[in-house]
Amino acid sequence: MSSQPPHSTLLIPGPVEFDDAVLQSMSHFSESHVGAPFVGVFGEALTMLRKLFQTSDPASQPFIISGSGTLGWDQVASNLTEPGEDALVLHTGYFGDSFADCFETYGVRATQLKAAIGDRPQLDEVEKALKERKYKVITVTHVDTSTGVLSELKNLSETVHRVSPETLVVVDGVCSVGCEEIRFDDWGIDVVLTASQKAIGCPAGLSILMASGRAIETFKNRKSRPSSYFGSWKNWLPVMQNYEAKKPSYFATPSPQLVRALHTTLTQILSKPLEDRYAAHAAASRKVKQAVADMGLKQIASKPENQANAMTAIYLPEGVKPTDVLPKLGQKGVVFAGGLHKEIATRYIRFGHMGVSVTDPDRTDIDHAIEALKSSL
Amino acid sequence: MSSQPPHSTLLIPGPVEFDDAVLQSMSHFSESHVGAPFVGVFGEALTMLRKLFQTSDPASQPFIISGSGTLGWDQVASNLTEPGEDALVLHTGYFGDSFADCFETYGVRATQLKAAIGDRPQLDEVEKALKERKYKVITVTHVDTSTGVLSELKNLSETVHRVSPETLVVVDGVCSVGCEEIRFDDWGIDVVLTASQKAIGCPAGLSILMASGRAIETFKNRKSRPSSYFGSWKNWLPVMQNYEAKKPSYFATPSPQLVRALHTTLTQILSKPLEDRYAAHAAASRKVKQAVADMGLKQIASKPENQANAMTAIYLPEGVKPTDVLPKLGQKGVVFAGGLHKEIATRYIRFGHMGVSVTDPDRTDIDHAIEALKSSL
Repeated sequence: MSSQPPHSTLLIPGPVEFDDAVLQSMSHFSESHVGAPFVGVFGEALTMLRKLFQTSDPASQPFIISGSGTLGWDQVASNLTEPGEDALVLHTGYFGDSFADCFETYGVRATQLKAAIGDRPQLDEVEKALKERKYKVITVTHVDTSTGVLSELKNLSETVHRVSPETLVVVDGVCSVGCEEIRFDDWGIDVVLTASQKAIGCPAGLSILMASGRAIETFKNRKSRPSSYFGSWKNWLPVMQNYEAKKPSYFATPSPQLVRALHTTLTQILSKPLEDRYAAHAAASRKVKQAVADMGLKQIASKPENQANAMTAIYLPEGVKPTDVLPKLGQKGVVFAGGLHKEIATRYIRFGHMGVSVTDPDRTDIDHAIEALKSSL
Repeated sequence: MSSQPPHSTLLIPGPVEFDDAVLQSMSHFSESHVGAPFVGVFGEALTMLRKLFQTSDPASQPFIISGSGTLGWDQVASNLTEPGEDALVLHTGYFGDSFADCFETYGVRATQLKAAIGDRPQLDEVEKALKERKYKVITVTHVDTSTGVLSELKNLSETVHRVSPETLVVVDGVCSVGCEEIRFDDWGIDVVLTASQKAIGCPAGLSILMASGRAIETFKNRKSRPSSYFGSWKNWLPVMQNYEAKKPSYFATPSPQLVRALHTTLTQILSKPLEDRYAAHAAASRKVKQAVADMGLKQIASKPENQANAMTAIYLPEGVKPTDVLPKLGQKGVVFAGGLHKEIATRYIRFGHMGVSVTDPDRTDIDHAIEALKSSL
């Protein structure tokens, strides 16, 4: 039995439902951010992130900073690129536009390679773009939360390394880390940025990032100073390295309660093989997508290979609006999200299937939500 | 009886001890950041901040953003000043240097007006500095957490308005909001930035800021775009205005649990006259400072008028180091902080007296800490 009071099941693509023990960690009594108990917990959380991202290269560097996932974009744009340099942004929805806007804020030229809605840029298009200009970084949204489009990372990274070996490969994994496989070392990724409140299963409020040794070297060789203060790795790098070595350190006060909750969920996640976790998410996703097809509905993500395991974005029947369906779902105790991609926002809804709703065998959240959707149309 | 497990009493200058109900709000079940219940809570928290800051001018604008107090500096430097402009930073300790570094990051020239350790810049020095150059903003650390030096705001603001009326008055209130009086409207302040984990009494993880109508106009009249993305008011202003109007809005996912905890503590704070809250902090501070004097110890803050009510920074007896005293205090269940001001860090300790340790009549934290300090020297 959950210790949480009865409430509607949150099945939006983040925040997700949280485990009881994680929520209990959020109410931990106050403690010093530089005292040994918290320093130990922070250090262990950083080390556990290495396992979650599947990196054993000691040069890889994890970061945990108070903020939302968006702060990860600032970290990339202000630490890895310099004013006047170029970024190639692969666009699969809303979050490509926003990441490009972030680069422009820091004086970096962002070139977007856009796919049709529901699709993703193809490797030959990426290769062509990389040959046309020298890009300091290429960014890809692993799962775009606005469309449910999944990007492929392994072959993409291979292509970048072959065609433009100096270009850093940056992955926006806000809606993928913890439910879609990411092999940081094997796939040659330089940055994965994410947030706490999705498949990692910790309340919102933490920007989480893994940087490769190559990314850290690029940062250290900057000609100009980092162009953000709060997001500056000059400020945070020694703090993260000290915390992981269990030494107190200070730049800005972290959130002990959020970091404890992160520690709890990472401990849970890593207590089982990651493969099982990915398989559970894939199975739940297949079930949802089959049910959606059985209802005669189409997904935004247009092909099986670009459909995320994290979520499903579903076109509503002609003439039906999210404002017709979401309240009916709400009456049945299920919370889905409306559309976010501006061009089609009034035509679709989003169903998130991440975290304990998928991995906890005692929960019937997904089956219940499928039934609720059927009876709400 | 507290529902928290027994633990050492945290009496550092932030984070502070938290109320049971506040910590319980931290473990609130997951909810949508754009759903009506959370939007209502967020909106009410914004409105309550107006009362806490004593501003009734509807043009004043509160902000609540995931991050630490430091993010408030980025908000000021990237939204209110533009590259090439000048900021005058009044220096009363560590945090003046850091705020200046933040301005320089965003291409703003920061001129520091430094006082001797334990003192604060005098009004005639401020007046002279303001006459020498055109400053877009002047910043003052209300209570510098590294020294316990209190700055005076009312006459300072009056001086700025008289000598350099276009200069915006920016207050770093990280260690003062909630325990030192701030009359935002009456004193003509343009920005107060703070964090959640000190006298406001909510766990760390929120950057809280109040901007005057004049500051918002200055922002709107910028020639260049805001120079931070995550801290950009272009992104956050419509979100804050929508939330306060109880309309869902999105830029980056807020932390529902932290905002609920903030709502709980603000409700508690505003249930009693603010004057009583300030008086309770002043009384506790007098008690601590008297006890320190009785022990033959001196404060870093050198004069009664520049000694904060939030905390006391205490010089140790000749030859005694923080590493001698802090472990003994720890054995008695009391957590103080070591020194932070580089030039004198090994010569002093810091005693924070904010929040429920001061305002909850059932707690004996302060008396116990005084006794523990006496017996640890």
